[in-house]
Amino acid sequence: MTKNDQVLHLLKQADGKSVSGEEMSRKIGVSRAAVWKEIQTLRSLGYEIQAQPHLGYQLTRIPDKLFADEIADSLGTKFIGKPIFSYEDLDSTNDTVFKLGEEGLAEGAAVFTEHQKKGRGRLGRSWISPKGKAILFSYLLRPTLAPSQVSRVTLVTGVSIARACRQLTGKPVGIKWPNDIYYQNKKVGGILTEMSAESDRINFVVVGVGINANSVAADLPANSLSLRDITGQDVARVSFSKMLLREIEVDYLRLKKGLFDEIAQEWESYSVTTGQRVAATLLDRRIEGQATGIDSEGALWIRKDNGLQERILSGDVQHLRAAG
Amino acid sequence: MTKNDQVLHLLKQADGKSVSGEEMSRKIGVSRAAVWKEIQTLRSLGYEIQAQPHLGYQLTRIPDKLFADEIADSLGTKFIGKPIFSYEDLDSTNDTVFKLGEEGLAEGAAVFTEHQKKGRGRLGRSWISPKGKAILFSYLLRPTLAPSQVSRVTLVTGVSIARACRQLTGKPVGIKWPNDIYYQNKKVGGILTEMSAESDRINFVVVGVGINANSVAADLPANSLSLRDITGQDVARVSFSKMLLREIEVDYLRLKKGLFDEIAQEWESYSVTTGQRVAATLLDRRIEGQATGIDSEGALWIRKDNGLQERILSGDVQHLRAAG
Repeated sequence: MTKNDQVLHLLKQADGKSVSGEEMSRKIGVSRAAVWKEIQTLRSLGYEIQAQPHLGYQLTRIPDKLFADEIADSLGTKFIGKPIFSYEDLDSTNDTVFKLGEEGLAEGAAVFTEHQKKGRGRLGRSWISPKGKAILFSYLLRPTLAPSQVSRVTLVTGVSIARACRQLTGKPVGIKWPNDIYYQNKKVGGILTEMSAESDRINFVVVGVGINANSVAADLPANSLSLRDITGQDVARVSFSKMLLREIEVDYLRLKKGLFDEIAQEWESYSVTTGQRVAATLLDRRIEGQATGIDSEGALWIRKDNGLQERILSGDVQHLRAAG
Repeated sequence: MTKNDQVLHLLKQADGKSVSGEEMSRKIGVSRAAVWKEIQTLRSLGYEIQAQPHLGYQLTRIPDKLFADEIADSLGTKFIGKPIFSYEDLDSTNDTVFKLGEEGLAEGAAVFTEHQKKGRGRLGRSWISPKGKAILFSYLLRPTLAPSQVSRVTLVTGVSIARACRQLTGKPVGIKWPNDIYYQNKKVGGILTEMSAESDRINFVVVGVGINANSVAADLPANSLSLRDITGQDVARVSFSKMLLREIEVDYLRLKKGLFDEIAQEWESYSVTTGQRVAATLLDRRIEGQATGIDSEGALWIRKDNGLQERILSGDVQHLRAAG
């Protein structure tokens, strides 16, 4: 622990009561001036710390910022979010975790940020979110899957996130195939799964998650919505981030146990795509029809107007209004 | 061009004749002392440069080292090897090219080295080769393939390398499925294909090639062989590297034109696996039978003793002696 962490730890331990500078100075083994300096640093990070004459310092508010220490505190997972790194600003959390993967870190390592300068969505598109209002993180996995099976990871993550969003909001937040979190036909979040792989073996997978948490309409594209829009109140981002990591671990362990079919069923129950009239834009053509659901590899099946089914593993899917 | 390159260029232009220090100093616009310094540097790199009294400097030998400038000289490709980077020593050429891919370089960029500290083969195995005797390089591709199709790149590269080795040696150098260059049941080279990809889209592919060029038996594992062992003479590594890059470009362009089936036929003609009795070790089991060839996705088909065929996309294949 840094001195900073030690001061914060003592303030938190006091549970709303005051701690004297002298006590902290003694317990940490630094001067009172040094304690005072750490208090200033914590304040600059957004911690509200009152100085009470004769009593000492009192922690009155923890900022809802995506600090690694706050998210890791009482997280309760086995490996997801172990460790967590957090940054005020990054090019892209996926890029950072990709580097951790190349450096050999174990699965579960996660990176959070308040803002991405080069946030990416699927198919190389940009993902923009206002500073300090989204939940942005990526984490490292090392599944024993073939590269062709990696879309399972996207679907499993979608299930975790949709379920967590439902628990938080009490509303039927859904999934638009393959990787968007949707509510009332608007985008609440997205998942970007990337991998480093040989032809027949995955080296590692990076899953990136972006959720519009506290954004307001002015911050977002027209087809987007935030959790705050759904609930009408600010989302506690740190506590919801913990919940997300826990749900992600639960479902990833299910995947590891070979329970993908069970997860795919849950995916179907959240799907806002199944049953819809859709247009799929593929590399070389466009098909239109009714989405009939996903299969055991996560591919979407579309029944075309001529009655034939097509199986879509990639590409862009747009929801259309029914013709009638 | 650096001053060093300029001096070398003038020496090469003289085509075996001498060039005076004064002439070089004038053409490059530096002092004669500076020319002399560059000559020393070139000598330290292995260039033999004779100083002829009153005549000047004469280039008498170009070292057969994998210098980027030497390989790029009269290479004649459209994009493979454009640009080339070379290093005396690297952890792994695949890792270096992977970083170039992340930095957005165009396809074709290649990295050569005389020695890898952490050379890798397939399935995370190590690839060891003595310094200065192998041909070690990796290059960047950006094919519009799905991740599940990336094994095509390995097979296509095998065809390029086997054909180049045949042209060089005049012997029927072959391919052991999926990625080894073989001659007389010994390993001459290997290919390691890695990729960065989303679930349904390849970001980029890195192809690594390692060839035992001038190694002698003492340098190599027992099951390996060098091109020098096959031909009985030293291989000119720079000129063979150019040939490899040219053949690689030819076949990659065929792949891009949708001619994979044609390449797969050529692959079959080089295959030392097809027709063999083999044992394949998969993630969860081992199967034995006769290899009957590859299909349009590059998977190997094996006819088991009970007459049933199995399709192998990954795993380890060992050639067995026929039972009879």
